Amino acid sequence: MSWPMRDQTAIVGIGETEYTRWGQIQRSEFQLCCEAITKAVDDSGLRMQDIDGFVTYSVDRNNPMTVAQTLGVKQLKYASLYPGGGNSTCGVIHHAAMAVYSGTADAVVCYRSLCQGQFGRFGHGAARTGATRYGGSNAFTMPFGVLAAVHRYALQARRHMHEFGTTSEQLGRISVASYANAQRNPRAVMYGRPITLEDHQNSRIIADPYHLYDCCQENDGACAVVVVSAERAKTLKRKPVYIMGAGHGAGHRDGGDEHSRPASTWTSSGFVEIARDCYERAGIGPNDIDVAQFYENFTGQVLMAIEDFGFCKKGEGGPFIADGNIDYPNGSLPINTSGGNLAEAYIHGLEMVLEGTRQMRGDSTSQVEGAETCLVVAGPAAPPSSALILRN
Amino acid sequence: MSWPMRDQTAIVGIGETEYTRWGQIQRSEFQLCCEAITKAVDDSGLRMQDIDGFVTYSVDRNNPMTVAQTLGVKQLKYASLYPGGGNSTCGVIHHAAMAVYSGTADAVVCYRSLCQGQFGRFGHGAARTGATRYGGSNAFTMPFGVLAAVHRYALQARRHMHEFGTTSEQLGRISVASYANAQRNPRAVMYGRPITLEDHQNSRIIADPYHLYDCCQENDGACAVVVVSAERAKTLKRKPVYIMGAGHGAGHRDGGDEHSRPASTWTSSGFVEIARDCYERAGIGPNDIDVAQFYENFTGQVLMAIEDFGFCKKGEGGPFIADGNIDYPNGSLPINTSGGNLAEAYIHGLEMVLEGTRQMRGDSTSQVEGAETCLVVAGPAAPPSSALILRN
Repeated sequence: MSWPMRDQTAIVGIGETEYTRWGQIQRSEFQLCCEAITKAVDDSGLRMQDIDGFVTYSVDRNNPMTVAQTLGVKQLKYASLYPGGGNSTCGVIHHAAMAVYSGTADAVVCYRSLCQGQFGRFGHGAARTGATRYGGSNAFTMPFGVLAAVHRYALQARRHMHEFGTTSEQLGRISVASYANAQRNPRAVMYGRPITLEDHQNSRIIADPYHLYDCCQENDGACAVVVVSAERAKTLKRKPVYIMGAGHGAGHRDGGDEHSRPASTWTSSGFVEIARDCYERAGIGPNDIDVAQFYENFTGQVLMAIEDFGFCKKGEGGPFIADGNIDYPNGSLPINTSGGNLAEAYIHGLEMVLEGTRQMRGDSTSQVEGAETCLVVAGPAAPPSSALILRN
Repeated sequence: MSWPMRDQTAIVGIGETEYTRWGQIQRSEFQLCCEAITKAVDDSGLRMQDIDGFVTYSVDRNNPMTVAQTLGVKQLKYASLYPGGGNSTCGVIHHAAMAVYSGTADAVVCYRSLCQGQFGRFGHGAARTGATRYGGSNAFTMPFGVLAAVHRYALQARRHMHEFGTTSEQLGRISVASYANAQRNPRAVMYGRPITLEDHQNSRIIADPYHLYDCCQENDGACAVVVVSAERAKTLKRKPVYIMGAGHGAGHRDGGDEHSRPASTWTSSGFVEIARDCYERAGIGPNDIDVAQFYENFTGQVLMAIEDFGFCKKGEGGPFIADGNIDYPNGSLPINTSGGNLAEAYIHGLEMVLEGTRQMRGDSTSQVEGAETCLVVAGPAAPPSSALILRN
């Protein structure tokens, strides 16, 4: 069955503030939000009065209505929150595309502004954040030391090692590849700070088996993306980047109570159904993907997402990575070409949609030659997650 | 320009729990949520494994992912939060319709579960709720006594009186009409408790000019609505109720900082642009509307919404109401035929979509003879708001 939305909408503008280590930006998170949106709209060649929709993550503190009012949009016709945090990376784009495709809005901006320096670092976990965030089933895991995301995700990585013989060195290759890409990207917070696999192995353990360099950064910054119809995109100044496929959600019994995830997801990033939908909708398969951006909160989840999306068989992610497949420029599937969450910046993944857009425009700092399709994959193992297939 | 979504999606199932005064339901808000959804799915003739999308208000405490996991849906393919509270009433349906129309999901459930008895009454305002809810610009109005919604909305009603000579008796007619409708509706919390205009006038002042009976109730309960494609709807057991038009958002400079609303909205419920979109998309005008459900947090905002939607001229809402136009069965525009938020139950307005559906099915307890179109209008003066035009 063909997907009516295939190639019917496009990304036509991207914008971002500077990215810094947490606490280093002195402007407010809301101001950064508006800056990133303004830059994205400028990039598209549209004017602010052409914008009539906003979508963000439900955890974003800058609500679409206040943003619209502040930026003086002529009329707001679409507003939406994708439920969650990093899992929303591609879902916000999918929402925007639906609004445009349905004739509800003409030009929708997706944004994420995240200043961990101003509102508390994710890595600090429960000790520094509101108790409500840790209600529900978390009340049953916190007493056992599962306080921050790294604790939960580390368990999954250890399980993958146990089942499939995956090694810390294999995970480290993801980090080394990302840092290498960041050395070509002046936006990257880790620009000028390359690491070796030895550095990875020698870095301190955060939560076994995760070393420091297996973990994403904590940053301040904002970014934004403009979505319009394919027809409209052809009239604008930037090369359109078409939304070829998109999917979000979760499989059977997977869900919001993350500790009740079914056994099939214990060594998976939970993308099996989303991957199937994305490929079916786009009408292509993993062999047709030229470059990919995988959200890395932690390296192990990237490995599992690579398996979920069918780039190798289940359990073979370790050897796939060790064989250099993800390395730029010679791997079969270069990933995280901006440096990603690990080495460019952690703006809750939305910065990876910007990098996917650059790859399709042909102007990434680690441009994959002749790339025609880019997969972008949102935060793993925190359903409802999301993914996109972009094409030029 | 015709709207591609016109009549392409339909409401095929509705369900609700019992509605009670706050604090009288002993089951959890989450349990009620799941009950209402189960009933709505049963009503449609679908099975839970056919459902693949969920939408709710961003203030709802029952997240779509946990709901999907708990109810065992086969695969979740669409999840969304409409940003806000009562303003979301029709926006959630619009979101669901976009997901279905775009081929992203097949059958989407919108729900709202609200137990004010379990989590704090809206009427208690800042004194009893988290300070964060009253951050931002509210910090500048709280010191002047604007603590709960009634204080803010009362100022707007007083302004309308000042500008146009609107009277408390005219507002009272809205309440009397709603309570009269509730006497025919056994679901209504105020069933068996009719009021007269004298009762309204004699009831205590909550915030001038609002008397007790100008204010919505505080209730416990949940309700849900199932949306599918028009094509699918024709194969199901209930008479389809088509989504003919929908609109949401806000006008220029209106927005999330409610205290900075432009002067044009001081005596408006903020629906001028949404009304125009709804009518244009549906291809009809106010004269074509047979029955309407207007969200009443407070009566004055209903009067202003009636003006915004063009049923009378600006400032003439008072006489329009006093002339009996909104009364069932003989008025030109019977409204709130279930009793609405005032007298059926305040489930943040979603119960009004259920009543609109009943009117279009022909089985309301205050059925408007031969009604073919129903307007449903969400929470006023709290952008981004929303509205729907349903038809049978």
